Amino acid sequence: MTTIERALKMHEEHQGKISVESKVAVTNREELALAYTPGVAEPCKRIEKNPEDSYRYTSRGNLVGVVTDGSAVLGLGNIGPLASMPVMEGKSLLFKQFGKIDAFPVALAEQDPDKLVEIITALAPTFGGINLEDISAPKCFEIEKKLQESLEIPVFHDDQHGTAIVVAAGLINSLKIVNKKINEIKVVLNGPGAAGTAIIYLLLHLGVTDIIACDSKGLIYEGREGLAGTYKEDLAQKTNQKKIKGKLSDAIKGADVFIGVSIAGALTVEMVKTMKKDPIVFAMANPTPEIMPDEAAKAGVKVMGTGRSDFPNQINNVLAFPGIFRGAFDAGAKKINAEMKEAAVYAIAELIEADKLSPEYVIPDVFDERVCQSVAEKVAEAARKSGAVY
Amino acid sequence: MTTIERALKMHEEHQGKISVESKVAVTNREELALAYTPGVAEPCKRIEKNPEDSYRYTSRGNLVGVVTDGSAVLGLGNIGPLASMPVMEGKSLLFKQFGKIDAFPVALAEQDPDKLVEIITALAPTFGGINLEDISAPKCFEIEKKLQESLEIPVFHDDQHGTAIVVAAGLINSLKIVNKKINEIKVVLNGPGAAGTAIIYLLLHLGVTDIIACDSKGLIYEGREGLAGTYKEDLAQKTNQKKIKGKLSDAIKGADVFIGVSIAGALTVEMVKTMKKDPIVFAMANPTPEIMPDEAAKAGVKVMGTGRSDFPNQINNVLAFPGIFRGAFDAGAKKINAEMKEAAVYAIAELIEADKLSPEYVIPDVFDERVCQSVAEKVAEAARKSGAVY
Repeated sequence: MTTIERALKMHEEHQGKISVESKVAVTNREELALAYTPGVAEPCKRIEKNPEDSYRYTSRGNLVGVVTDGSAVLGLGNIGPLASMPVMEGKSLLFKQFGKIDAFPVALAEQDPDKLVEIITALAPTFGGINLEDISAPKCFEIEKKLQESLEIPVFHDDQHGTAIVVAAGLINSLKIVNKKINEIKVVLNGPGAAGTAIIYLLLHLGVTDIIACDSKGLIYEGREGLAGTYKEDLAQKTNQKKIKGKLSDAIKGADVFIGVSIAGALTVEMVKTMKKDPIVFAMANPTPEIMPDEAAKAGVKVMGTGRSDFPNQINNVLAFPGIFRGAFDAGAKKINAEMKEAAVYAIAELIEADKLSPEYVIPDVFDERVCQSVAEKVAEAARKSGAVY
Repeated sequence: MTTIERALKMHEEHQGKISVESKVAVTNREELALAYTPGVAEPCKRIEKNPEDSYRYTSRGNLVGVVTDGSAVLGLGNIGPLASMPVMEGKSLLFKQFGKIDAFPVALAEQDPDKLVEIITALAPTFGGINLEDISAPKCFEIEKKLQESLEIPVFHDDQHGTAIVVAAGLINSLKIVNKKINEIKVVLNGPGAAGTAIIYLLLHLGVTDIIACDSKGLIYEGREGLAGTYKEDLAQKTNQKKIKGKLSDAIKGADVFIGVSIAGALTVEMVKTMKKDPIVFAMANPTPEIMPDEAAKAGVKVMGTGRSDFPNQINNVLAFPGIFRGAFDAGAKKINAEMKEAAVYAIAELIEADKLSPEYVIPDVFDERVCQSVAEKVAEAARKSGAVY
């Protein structure tokens, strides 16, 4: 059987991948009286009096809603909420497996951003945190921002920040290998969608000063036609300080780092040859990267990462989101802020000891059991120090 | 420790009562490739092409959303969504324990009926069925009706129909004891809220012809001031054909059956004494019934049920909702219609064999293991015959 056939069989045999289970038994009148009426009235009253008690008497404190509108699912596009469910269930399963977090998939039959904000806001009492998933750009930016402003629970759009955090960790380790400083490198990013945009902002936060983004219309620069009023206007202001115009091949000249969140083949051997010495390439187009590792190596690339598990240095969000929510929950954080994301970056990067660091090993393995715990501890510490716990 | 103390301790020790678990393992790359990318893409594509496949490849086919706005929680009133959560988790647990159904509690921070309909409609792709819970009357009627019209999944407001079904089953068995026919009895119902109203409609559907409702303003009759435009206008048209005015004590004279969903002490010994021979009383005010069983017996009541587990004939919704959803799911029903509810009534009533029937045993025990299966089979059969499966 092919992977496709095996996957279909597995999904059908189990009728989906998640179940809701009881933590307590209800097999006699005594147990029923504690878990349901009349016993249940008391925790209700306590929570009514003190809302914080919801973390004490309900499952909410370890419960994440994995929420989507199905508008940008994997590489499949806008397949809608119903068809997105296998991915959301899969994500919930990863939360449990890697972060020991109860996660419940919520697929919403609504794609208007304002309505989505309304609905997710109404859902907030149900969950201790919201993981936004597979919501298309640009509305994902607005939705996340509004929810973060209005809700007093962690809200995290994993497609943006999960990817950004793992790329940043990989980049920090790569720079150790090529002996370059983060504030001296030139970075070119191809494909500033949800993940690409978050990568740019995170790298700027981490000290990168020279970064250029390229979309399907070419390089992004302040004043480019059609940017006004879009999220790319802000990107243009914060990147490409020299206002370089043209195509990817124009920006890539003399760059130290290429980051692709775009399409197969976007980075050619010729382009790589115009990059600075010891190029670093994160080519994350799925399933076929912007440049294949063997071609990249021949063209002189020193460190390379992709989204695939069959090449070294896999950029996989699962290295980030379970530990981030685990840390937020453990600390009782009300937000996931920039300090917590930064802490996650360094937690992931530091797991690779200096003597083990190599071009084939700048990012920990997905199944490295140290990852979640380590990220969680650093994130929880950052939450406490940065005022996300109150 | 008191029950209250034990209940608090139990809720705190387990940090709530439900968890979300994985049905499949993800402990290596192979398993990850089946449960998540790339394997997960295929079930997504199948569902996109054929929405019915969501029942095949996701957990939806056995998943109920237990949805509330926290506006009428137990006897606690409008305590809001956050404080309602222990009850919703408890309900989810009962679904699992009694019906082997995955149920997830959803507490919504929204109390406007139209908005609630919008939000719950948006949630529909997530669930295979919606159990509305603890939503106040009269908005619960409108919300359920609109959702039943717009959604192609079972929608059931348990506070209405669960109670009604169990009361009707108890009444049918009680009538066997007193040798009366359902179409010849006079019924008086005190407290036509969510449950009371549903009881009235169900009894009319089952053949009762003479029924009078009484609210805090007295007997309901067609033309009573203030009824126009409310749900009680329809009630008034369908009940109290003689347009009797006055108080409960005026209607109870010559009644065969009293059904109370109201307040402690509403039914007095004096009132019972004016009822016909062999009165039947279902006094469900919680925690103290409309009349206490010992007083009722002294006044001549022949068969009596309450909401309490420490008296015979407990009217408990758990006899109905797990089997109803189990039957709907097993049949692949898109609705829960009148035929299915009626089937549930007779399934529950028929569980008590003729030779075991007695005034102390007209309703099966909550922990009678035959109940769910029996209700499920009859409900599934009714679903198929009545066109709820398509």
